[in-house]
Amino acid sequence: MSTDAPVTLYELVLENGRSASPYVWRIRYALAHKGIPYESRPVGFTEIREQYGGRFKTVPVLEHGATVLNESWQIAEYLDRVFPRRALFATAAENATVRFADACLAEVLLRRMFYIYVLDVHNAARPADRAYFRASREQWLKCTSLEAFTAERERHLPKMRAALAPLRAQLAHNPFLGGAAPNYADYIALGYFHWVASVATLPMLARDDEPLRGYLERGFDLYDGLGRDARMRPLFE
Amino acid sequence: MSTDAPVTLYELVLENGRSASPYVWRIRYALAHKGIPYESRPVGFTEIREQYGGRFKTVPVLEHGATVLNESWQIAEYLDRVFPRRALFATAAENATVRFADACLAEVLLRRMFYIYVLDVHNAARPADRAYFRASREQWLKCTSLEAFTAERERHLPKMRAALAPLRAQLAHNPFLGGAAPNYADYIALGYFHWVASVATLPMLARDDEPLRGYLERGFDLYDGLGRDARMRPLFE
Repeated sequence: MSTDAPVTLYELVLENGRSASPYVWRIRYALAHKGIPYESRPVGFTEIREQYGGRFKTVPVLEHGATVLNESWQIAEYLDRVFPRRALFATAAENATVRFADACLAEVLLRRMFYIYVLDVHNAARPADRAYFRASREQWLKCTSLEAFTAERERHLPKMRAALAPLRAQLAHNPFLGGAAPNYADYIALGYFHWVASVATLPMLARDDEPLRGYLERGFDLYDGLGRDARMRPLFE
Repeated sequence: MSTDAPVTLYELVLENGRSASPYVWRIRYALAHKGIPYESRPVGFTEIREQYGGRFKTVPVLEHGATVLNESWQIAEYLDRVFPRRALFATAAENATVRFADACLAEVLLRRMFYIYVLDVHNAARPADRAYFRASREQWLKCTSLEAFTAERERHLPKMRAALAPLRAQLAHNPFLGGAAPNYADYIALGYFHWVASVATLPMLARDDEPLRGYLERGFDLYDGLGRDARMRPLFE
Protein backbone atom coordinates (compact mmCIF):
# COMPACT_ATOMS: atom_id res chain seq x y z
CA MET A 1 0.00 0.00 0.00
CA SER A 2 1.34 3.41 -0.92
CA THR A 3 1.92 5.52 2.14
CA ASP A 4 0.10 8.29 0.25
CA ALA A 5 -3.23 6.46 0.40
CA PRO A 6 -5.61 8.10 2.87
CA VAL A 7 -5.76 6.83 6.44
CA THR A 8 -9.09 6.71 8.26
CA LEU A 9 -9.51 5.86 11.94
CA TYR A 10 -12.89 4.71 13.21
CA GLU A 11 -13.23 5.90 16.79
CA LEU A 12 -15.75 5.22 19.48
CA VAL A 13 -17.60 8.38 20.36
CA LEU A 14 -19.53 9.42 23.45
CA GLU A 15 -22.46 11.80 23.66
CA ASN A 16 -20.08 14.72 24.25
CA GLY A 17 -18.03 13.77 21.19
CA ARG A 18 -14.94 12.53 23.04
CA SER A 19 -13.25 9.33 21.98
CA ALA A 20 -13.79 6.74 24.66
CA SER A 21 -11.98 3.54 23.82
CA PRO A 22 -8.58 3.08 25.46
CA TYR A 23 -7.59 1.03 22.42
CA VAL A 24 -8.49 3.84 20.04
CA TRP A 25 -6.41 6.26 22.13
CA ARG A 26 -3.37 4.04 21.62
CA ILE A 27 -3.75 4.36 17.88
CA ARG A 28 -4.38 8.09 18.04
CA TYR A 29 -1.06 8.39 19.88
CA ALA A 30 0.66 5.99 17.50
CA LEU A 31 -0.46 8.02 14.48
CA ALA A 32 0.69 11.24 16.16
CA HIS A 33 4.03 9.65 17.16
CA LYS A 34 4.67 8.77 13.53
CA GLY A 35 3.28 12.02 12.18
CA ILE A 36 0.72 10.27 9.95
CA PRO A 37 -2.23 12.48 8.96
CA TYR A 38 -5.60 10.75 9.13
CA GLU A 39 -9.30 11.35 9.02
CA SER A 40 -11.27 10.53 12.15
CA ARG A 41 -14.63 8.77 11.68
CA PRO A 42 -16.65 8.74 14.92
CA VAL A 43 -18.98 5.78 15.46
CA GLY A 44 -21.20 4.88 18.39
CA PHE A 45 -21.17 1.52 20.17
CA THR A 46 -24.08 0.27 18.07
CA GLU A 47 -22.62 1.40 14.76
CA ILE A 48 -19.41 -0.60 14.96
CA ARG A 49 -21.11 -3.82 13.93
CA GLU A 50 -23.08 -2.17 11.15
CA GLN A 51 -19.88 -0.99 9.55
CA TYR A 52 -18.32 -3.67 7.31
CA GLY A 53 -21.37 -5.96 7.57
CA GLY A 54 -20.51 -7.19 11.09
CA ARG A 55 -16.93 -8.15 10.20
CA PHE A 56 -15.60 -6.15 13.15
CA LYS A 57 -17.20 -5.86 16.56
CA THR A 58 -14.75 -3.42 18.13
CA VAL A 59 -12.83 -0.28 17.34
CA PRO A 60 -10.25 0.86 16.46
CA VAL A 61 -10.67 0.06 12.82
CA LEU A 62 -8.07 1.60 10.55
CA GLU A 63 -8.43 1.96 6.81
CA HIS A 64 -5.41 2.66 4.70
CA GLY A 65 -6.42 2.72 1.05
CA ALA A 66 -7.90 -0.74 0.45
CA THR A 67 -6.40 -2.22 3.63
CA VAL A 68 -8.75 -2.53 6.60
CA LEU A 69 -7.42 -3.51 10.01
CA ASN A 70 -9.01 -4.12 13.38
CA GLU A 71 -7.35 -4.70 16.80
CA SER A 72 -4.92 -2.14 18.12
CA TRP A 73 -1.78 -4.30 18.18
CA GLN A 74 -2.28 -5.35 14.58
CA ILE A 75 -2.76 -1.73 13.61
CA ALA A 76 0.32 -0.54 15.51
CA GLU A 77 2.50 -3.19 13.89
CA TYR A 78 1.04 -2.43 10.46
CA LEU A 79 1.86 1.25 10.92
CA ASP A 80 5.49 0.39 11.72
CA ARG A 81 5.77 -1.87 8.67
CA VAL A 82 4.19 0.50 6.18
CA PHE A 83 5.30 3.83 7.68
CA PRO A 84 8.75 2.92 9.06
CA ARG A 85 9.68 6.51 9.99
CA ARG A 86 9.74 7.07 13.79
CA ALA A 87 9.29 3.43 14.74
CA LEU A 88 6.87 2.61 17.53
CA PHE A 89 9.00 -0.46 18.24
CA ALA A 90 12.71 -0.02 17.56
CA THR A 91 13.41 -3.73 18.10
CA ALA A 92 11.44 -6.97 18.22
CA ALA A 93 12.36 -7.26 21.90
CA GLU A 94 10.84 -3.84 22.62
CA ASN A 95 7.66 -4.89 20.84
CA ALA A 96 7.47 -8.15 22.82
CA THR A 97 8.22 -6.46 26.12
CA VAL A 98 5.60 -3.75 25.58
CA ARG A 99 3.12 -6.49 24.70
CA PHE A 100 3.92 -8.21 27.97
CA ALA A 101 3.64 -4.95 29.92
CA ASP A 102 0.28 -4.38 28.22
CA ALA A 103 -0.98 -7.76 29.41
CA CYS A 104 0.31 -7.10 32.93
CA LEU A 105 -1.28 -3.66 33.07
CA ALA A 106 -4.61 -5.07 31.90
CA GLU A 107 -4.41 -7.69 34.65
CA VAL A 108 -3.71 -5.02 37.25
CA LEU A 109 -6.19 -2.41 36.06
CA LEU A 110 -8.95 -3.51 33.79
CA ARG A 111 -11.40 -5.28 36.05
CA ARG A 112 -10.85 -2.71 38.80
CA MET A 113 -11.63 0.08 36.34
CA PHE A 114 -14.88 -1.59 35.35
CA TYR A 115 -15.87 -1.90 39.00
CA ILE A 116 -15.55 1.87 39.25
CA TYR A 117 -16.37 3.30 35.84
CA VAL A 118 -18.52 1.01 33.71
CA LEU A 119 -21.74 2.80 34.71
CA ASP A 120 -20.09 6.15 33.98
CA VAL A 121 -19.25 4.91 30.48
CA HIS A 122 -22.87 3.86 30.01
CA ASN A 123 -24.16 7.24 31.15
CA ALA A 124 -21.70 9.11 28.94
CA ALA A 125 -22.54 7.06 25.83
CA ARG A 126 -24.84 8.45 23.18
CA PRO A 127 -28.44 7.74 24.26
CA ALA A 128 -28.93 5.50 21.23
CA ASP A 129 -26.01 3.30 22.36
CA ARG A 130 -26.91 2.85 26.00
CA ALA A 131 -29.24 -0.15 25.79
CA TYR A 132 -26.75 -2.09 23.69
CA PHE A 133 -23.84 -1.08 25.93
CA ARG A 134 -25.73 -2.14 29.05
CA ALA A 135 -26.84 -5.51 27.69
CA SER A 136 -23.44 -6.45 26.24
CA ARG A 137 -21.46 -5.36 29.33
CA GLU A 138 -23.84 -6.97 31.80
CA GLN A 139 -23.44 -10.23 29.92
CA TRP A 140 -19.67 -9.85 29.64
CA LEU A 141 -19.16 -8.87 33.29
CA LYS A 142 -21.66 -11.54 34.41
CA CYS A 143 -23.58 -9.09 36.60
CA THR A 144 -27.26 -8.45 37.15
CA SER A 145 -26.89 -4.73 36.44
CA LEU A 146 -24.20 -2.14 35.89
CA GLU A 147 -25.58 -0.38 38.95
CA ALA A 148 -25.01 -3.47 41.10
CA PHE A 149 -21.56 -4.01 39.60
CA THR A 150 -20.45 -0.50 40.54
CA ALA A 151 -22.34 -0.28 43.85
CA GLU A 152 -19.15 -0.63 45.89
CA ARG A 153 -16.99 1.53 43.71
CA GLU A 154 -15.84 3.70 46.60
CA ARG A 155 -14.40 0.56 48.17
CA HIS A 156 -12.62 -0.39 44.96
CA LEU A 157 -11.05 3.04 44.53
CA PRO A 158 -8.20 2.61 47.07
CA LYS A 159 -7.39 -0.80 45.58
CA MET A 160 -7.21 0.68 42.11
CA ARG A 161 -4.97 3.47 43.34
CA ALA A 162 -2.71 0.94 45.06
CA ALA A 163 -2.63 -1.14 41.89
CA LEU A 164 -1.05 1.79 40.05
CA ALA A 165 2.15 1.17 42.06
CA PRO A 166 4.06 -0.15 39.00
CA LEU A 167 3.53 3.15 37.21
CA ARG A 168 4.81 5.11 40.20
CA ALA A 169 7.81 2.78 40.55
CA GLN A 170 8.69 3.26 36.92
CA LEU A 171 8.17 7.02 37.01
CA ALA A 172 10.59 7.29 39.93
CA HIS A 173 13.29 6.28 37.43
CA ASN A 174 12.10 7.78 34.18
CA PRO A 175 9.87 10.59 32.93
CA PHE A 176 7.97 8.11 30.76
CA LEU A 177 7.21 4.39 30.99
CA GLY A 178 9.32 4.00 27.85
CA GLY A 179 12.26 5.85 29.45
CA ALA A 180 13.45 9.34 28.51
CA ALA A 181 10.91 9.49 25.68
CA PRO A 182 7.43 7.99 25.45
CA ASN A 183 6.97 4.65 23.75
CA TYR A 184 3.94 2.50 23.02
CA ALA A 185 3.72 1.48 26.72
CA ASP A 186 2.97 5.14 27.44
CA TYR A 187 0.31 5.29 24.76
CA ILE A 188 -1.34 2.26 26.35
CA ALA A 189 -1.28 3.84 29.81
CA LEU A 190 -2.36 7.27 28.59
CA GLY A 191 -5.23 5.59 26.77
CA TYR A 192 -6.58 4.26 30.06
CA PHE A 193 -6.39 7.70 31.64
CA HIS A 194 -8.04 9.41 28.65
CA TRP A 195 -10.80 6.82 28.81
CA VAL A 196 -11.46 7.58 32.47
CA ALA A 197 -11.16 11.33 31.90
CA SER A 198 -13.88 11.05 29.26
CA VAL A 199 -16.48 9.64 31.64
CA ALA A 200 -15.45 9.75 35.33
CA THR A 201 -17.87 11.05 37.94
CA LEU A 202 -15.46 9.89 40.69
CA PRO A 203 -11.86 11.12 40.51
CA MET A 204 -9.48 8.24 39.87
CA LEU A 205 -6.45 9.62 41.69
CA ALA A 206 -5.64 11.06 45.08
CA ARG A 207 -4.74 14.72 45.39
CA ASP A 208 -1.21 13.92 46.60
CA ASP A 209 -0.35 11.42 43.88
CA GLU A 210 2.43 13.62 42.54
CA PRO A 211 4.27 10.96 40.52
CA LEU A 212 1.14 10.36 38.47
CA ARG A 213 0.18 14.04 38.34
CA GLY A 214 3.53 14.94 36.82
CA TYR A 215 3.36 12.03 34.40
CA LEU A 216 -0.15 12.86 33.22
CA GLU A 217 0.80 16.49 32.68
CA ARG A 218 3.73 15.38 30.50
CA GLY A 219 1.69 12.71 28.79
CA PHE A 220 -1.33 14.84 27.97
CA ASP A 221 0.99 17.55 26.65
CA LEU A 222 2.43 15.22 24.01
CA TYR A 223 1.75 16.02 20.35
CA ASP A 224 0.35 19.49 20.95
CA GLY A 225 -1.88 18.28 23.76
CA LEU A 226 -3.54 15.50 21.78
CA GLY A 227 -6.93 14.83 23.32
CA ARG A 228 -6.68 17.53 25.97
CA ASP A 229 -9.90 19.50 25.93
CA ALA A 230 -12.47 21.21 28.14
CA ARG A 231 -14.72 18.15 28.19
CA MET A 232 -12.18 16.13 30.23
CA ARG A 233 -13.41 15.34 33.70
CA PRO A 234 -11.03 15.67 36.67
CA LEU A 235 -8.74 12.69 37.23
CA PHE A 236 -7.54 14.04 40.59
CA GLU A 237 -9.77 14.52 43.61
CA MET B 1 37.45 -2.02 35.72
CA SER B 2 39.17 -4.53 33.44
CA THR B 3 36.77 -7.16 32.23
CA ASP B 4 39.47 -9.69 33.21
CA ALA B 5 39.05 -8.99 36.93
CA PRO B 6 37.30 -11.86 38.69
CA VAL B 7 33.53 -11.78 39.13
CA THR B 8 31.98 -13.13 42.33
CA LEU B 9 28.25 -13.52 42.93
CA TYR B 10 26.95 -13.78 46.48
CA GLU B 11 23.88 -16.00 46.41
CA LEU B 12 21.29 -16.84 48.99
CA VAL B 13 21.44 -20.53 49.81
CA LEU B 14 18.90 -22.91 51.33
CA GLU B 15 19.57 -25.97 53.45
CA ASN B 16 19.65 -28.14 50.30
CA GLY B 17 22.18 -25.83 48.66
CA ARG B 18 19.83 -24.35 46.04
CA SER B 19 19.86 -20.65 45.36
CA ALA B 20 16.60 -19.18 46.60
CA SER B 21 16.39 -15.50 45.80
CA PRO B 22 14.44 -14.59 42.68
CA TYR B 23 16.72 -11.55 42.35
CA VAL B 24 19.85 -13.70 42.41
CA TRP B 25 18.38 -15.93 39.72
CA ARG B 26 18.02 -12.89 37.45
CA ILE B 27 21.72 -12.21 37.76
CA ARG B 28 22.67 -15.85 37.28
CA TYR B 29 20.74 -15.73 34.00
CA ALA B 30 22.22 -12.35 33.09
CA LEU B 31 25.76 -13.67 33.60
CA ALA B 32 24.97 -16.79 31.55
CA HIS B 33 23.34 -14.67 28.81
CA LYS B 34 26.53 -12.65 28.49
CA GLY B 35 28.85 -15.64 28.90
CA ILE B 36 30.66 -14.10 31.89
CA PRO B 37 32.44 -16.66 34.09
CA TYR B 38 32.03 -16.08 37.82
CA GLU B 39 32.56 -17.64 41.19
CA SER B 40 29.46 -18.34 43.28
CA ARG B 41 29.67 -17.57 46.99
CA PRO B 42 26.70 -19.04 48.90
CA VAL B 43 25.51 -17.15 51.97
CA GLY B 44 22.62 -17.78 54.32
CA PHE B 45 19.97 -15.20 55.23
CA THR B 46 21.85 -14.28 58.43
CA GLU B 47 25.24 -13.97 56.74
CA ILE B 48 24.25 -11.28 54.24
CA ARG B 49 24.45 -8.49 56.81
CA GLU B 50 27.74 -9.78 58.28
CA GLN B 51 29.39 -9.51 54.89
CA TYR B 52 30.66 -5.96 54.20
CA GLY B 53 29.99 -4.79 57.77
CA GLY B 54 26.24 -4.44 57.27
CA ARG B 55 26.54 -2.31 54.12
CA PHE B 56 24.19 -4.62 52.25
CA LYS B 57 21.10 -6.28 53.63
CA THR B 58 20.12 -8.28 50.57
CA VAL B 59 21.60 -10.39 47.81
CA PRO B 60 22.57 -10.45 45.04
CA VAL B 61 25.88 -8.79 45.72
CA LEU B 62 28.30 -8.81 42.82
CA GLU B 63 32.01 -8.17 43.11
CA HIS B 64 34.01 -7.34 40.02
CA GLY B 65 37.58 -6.64 41.03
CA ALA B 66 37.31 -3.73 43.47
CA THR B 67 33.74 -2.85 42.43
CA VAL B 68 30.98 -4.09 44.73
CA LEU B 69 27.34 -3.78 43.69
CA ASN B 70 24.06 -4.63 45.34
CA GLU B 71 20.51 -4.64 43.85
CA SER B 72 19.78 -6.67 40.78
CA TRP B 73 18.89 -3.82 38.40
CA GLN B 74 22.08 -1.97 39.23
CA ILE B 75 24.06 -5.14 38.65
CA ALA B 76 22.34 -5.91 35.34
CA GLU B 77 23.00 -2.40 34.03
CA TYR B 78 26.61 -2.52 35.24
CA LEU B 79 27.14 -5.78 33.39
CA ASP B 80 25.86 -4.22 30.17
CA ARG B 81 28.15 -1.20 30.59
CA VAL B 82 31.32 -3.10 31.45
CA PHE B 83 30.73 -6.26 29.39
CA PRO B 84 28.90 -4.86 26.36
CA ARG B 85 28.95 -8.13 24.41
CA ARG B 86 25.47 -9.72 24.13
CA ALA B 87 23.56 -6.80 25.61
CA LEU B 88 20.83 -7.53 28.11
CA PHE B 89 19.14 -4.32 26.95
CA ALA B 90 19.65 -3.51 23.29
CA THR B 91 18.05 -0.07 23.68
CA ALA B 92 17.18 2.33 26.49
CA ALA B 93 13.51 1.79 25.64
CA GLU B 94 13.88 -1.98 26.10
CA ASN B 95 15.51 -1.39 29.48
CA ALA B 96 12.72 0.97 30.57
CA THR B 97 9.98 -1.31 29.32
CA VAL B 98 11.43 -4.37 31.05
CA ARG B 99 11.67 -2.31 34.24
CA PHE B 100 8.00 -1.45 33.91
CA ALA B 101 7.08 -5.08 33.22
CA ASP B 102 9.12 -6.04 36.30
CA ALA B 103 7.11 -3.64 38.46
CA CYS B 104 3.83 -4.91 36.99
CA LEU B 105 4.78 -8.55 37.51
CA ALA B 106 5.74 -7.84 41.13
CA GLU B 107 2.36 -6.16 41.65
CA VAL B 108 0.56 -9.16 40.18
CA LEU B 109 2.59 -11.92 41.82
CA LEU B 110 4.67 -11.04 44.81
CA ARG B 111 2.18 -10.76 47.65
CA ARG B 112 0.22 -13.73 46.33
CA MET B 113 3.41 -15.80 46.30
CA PHE B 114 4.12 -14.91 49.92
CA TYR B 115 0.60 -15.95 50.90
CA ILE B 116 1.38 -19.38 49.51
CA TYR B 117 5.11 -19.95 49.92
CA VAL B 118 6.67 -17.85 52.68
CA LEU B 119 6.44 -20.68 55.22
CA ASP B 120 7.94 -23.08 52.69
CA VAL B 121 10.90 -20.71 52.29
CA HIS B 122 11.31 -20.63 56.06
CA ASN B 123 11.25 -24.40 56.29
CA ALA B 124 13.72 -24.80 53.43
CA ALA B 125 16.19 -22.27 54.86
CA ARG B 126 19.29 -23.44 56.70
CA PRO B 127 18.29 -24.11 60.34
CA ALA B 128 20.60 -21.32 61.51
CA ASP B 129 18.71 -18.81 59.34
CA ARG B 130 15.16 -19.69 60.28
CA ALA B 131 14.69 -17.55 63.38
CA TYR B 132 16.00 -14.46 61.59
CA PHE B 133 13.93 -15.21 58.48
CA ARG B 134 10.79 -15.67 60.56
CA ALA B 135 11.22 -12.51 62.62
CA SER B 136 12.11 -10.28 59.66
CA ARG B 137 9.32 -11.58 57.40
CA GLU B 138 6.66 -11.49 60.12
CA GLN B 139 7.54 -7.86 60.70
CA TRP B 140 7.66 -7.06 56.99
CA LEU B 141 4.40 -8.86 56.16
CA LYS B 142 2.75 -7.44 59.31
CA CYS B 143 1.47 -10.86 60.41
CA THR B 144 1.35 -12.64 63.75
CA SER B 145 3.06 -15.73 62.32
CA LEU B 146 4.11 -17.18 58.98
CA GLU B 147 1.78 -20.07 59.76
CA ALA B 148 -1.18 -17.67 60.09
CA PHE B 149 -0.15 -15.79 56.97
CA THR B 150 -0.16 -18.96 54.86
CA ALA B 151 -3.14 -20.63 56.56
CA GLU B 152 -5.41 -20.00 53.58
CA ARG B 153 -2.87 -20.75 50.90
CA GLU B 154 -5.13 -23.25 49.14
CA ARG B 155 -7.61 -20.41 48.67
CA HIS B 156 -4.92 -18.12 47.27
CA LEU B 157 -3.67 -20.68 44.78
CA PRO B 158 -6.43 -20.23 42.15
CA LYS B 159 -6.00 -16.45 42.38
CA MET B 160 -2.28 -16.75 41.82
CA ARG B 161 -2.86 -19.05 38.85
CA ALA B 162 -5.35 -16.58 37.40
CA ALA B 163 -2.89 -13.74 37.97
CA LEU B 164 -0.43 -15.46 35.63
CA ALA B 165 -2.74 -14.58 32.72
CA PRO B 166 -0.33 -11.97 31.32
CA LEU B 167 2.36 -14.62 30.89
CA ARG B 168 -0.06 -16.91 29.08
CA ALA B 169 -1.26 -14.04 26.87
CA GLN B 170 2.30 -13.19 25.93
CA LEU B 171 3.29 -16.82 25.32
CA ALA B 172 0.39 -17.21 22.90
CA HIS B 173 2.32 -14.80 20.64
CA ASN B 174 5.95 -15.58 21.39
CA PRO B 175 8.08 -18.43 22.73
CA PHE B 176 9.60 -16.06 25.29
CA LEU B 177 8.39 -12.95 27.09
CA GLY B 178 11.15 -11.10 25.24
CA GLY B 179 9.94 -12.42 21.87
CA ALA B 180 11.72 -15.00 19.72
CA ALA B 181 14.65 -15.05 22.14
CA PRO B 182 14.70 -14.58 25.91
CA ASN B 183 15.43 -11.15 27.35
CA TYR B 184 15.74 -9.83 30.88
CA ALA B 185 11.95 -10.02 31.34
CA ASP B 186 12.30 -13.79 30.99
CA TYR B 187 15.11 -13.91 33.53
CA ILE B 188 12.86 -12.04 35.96
CA ALA B 189 9.97 -14.47 35.40
CA LEU B 190 12.18 -17.57 35.45
CA GLY B 191 13.66 -16.31 38.72
CA TYR B 192 10.24 -16.41 40.35
CA PHE B 193 9.65 -19.96 39.14
CA HIS B 194 13.11 -21.13 40.26
CA TRP B 195 12.43 -19.60 43.66
CA VAL B 196 9.18 -21.50 44.02
CA ALA B 197 10.75 -24.69 42.65
CA SER B 198 13.39 -24.45 45.38
CA VAL B 199 10.89 -24.59 48.23
CA ALA B 200 7.32 -25.45 47.18
CA THR B 201 5.34 -28.07 49.07
CA LEU B 202 2.22 -27.10 47.06
CA PRO B 203 2.48 -27.17 43.27
CA MET B 204 2.12 -23.69 41.85
CA LEU B 205 0.56 -24.62 38.50
CA ALA B 206 -2.34 -26.68 37.26
CA ARG B 207 -1.69 -29.86 35.34
CA ASP B 208 -3.32 -28.50 32.19
CA ASP B 209 -1.45 -25.18 32.11
CA GLU B 210 0.24 -26.04 28.83
CA PRO B 211 1.28 -22.50 27.88
CA LEU B 212 3.32 -22.24 31.07
CA ARG B 213 4.53 -25.83 30.92
CA GLY B 214 6.02 -25.29 27.49
CA TYR B 215 7.52 -21.98 28.52
CA LEU B 216 9.13 -23.38 31.65
CA GLU B 217 10.61 -26.29 29.69
CA ARG B 218 12.17 -23.84 27.25
CA GLY B 219 13.22 -21.45 29.99
CA PHE B 220 14.79 -24.02 32.29
CA ASP B 221 16.66 -25.49 29.29
CA LEU B 222 18.45 -22.19 28.62
CA TYR B 223 22.23 -22.05 29.10
CA ASP B 224 22.71 -25.81 29.42
CA GLY B 225 19.84 -26.14 31.86
CA LEU B 226 21.08 -23.47 34.27
CA GLY B 227 19.68 -24.26 37.70
CA ARG B 228 17.85 -27.42 36.63
CA ASP B 229 18.64 -30.13 39.15
CA ALA B 230 17.19 -33.05 41.07
CA ARG B 231 16.42 -30.89 44.11
CA MET B 232 13.75 -28.92 42.25
CA ARG B 233 10.29 -29.53 43.61
CA PRO B 234 7.37 -30.01 41.21
CA LEU B 235 5.84 -26.81 39.87
CA PHE B 236 2.91 -28.68 38.28
CA GLU B 237 0.29 -30.59 40.23
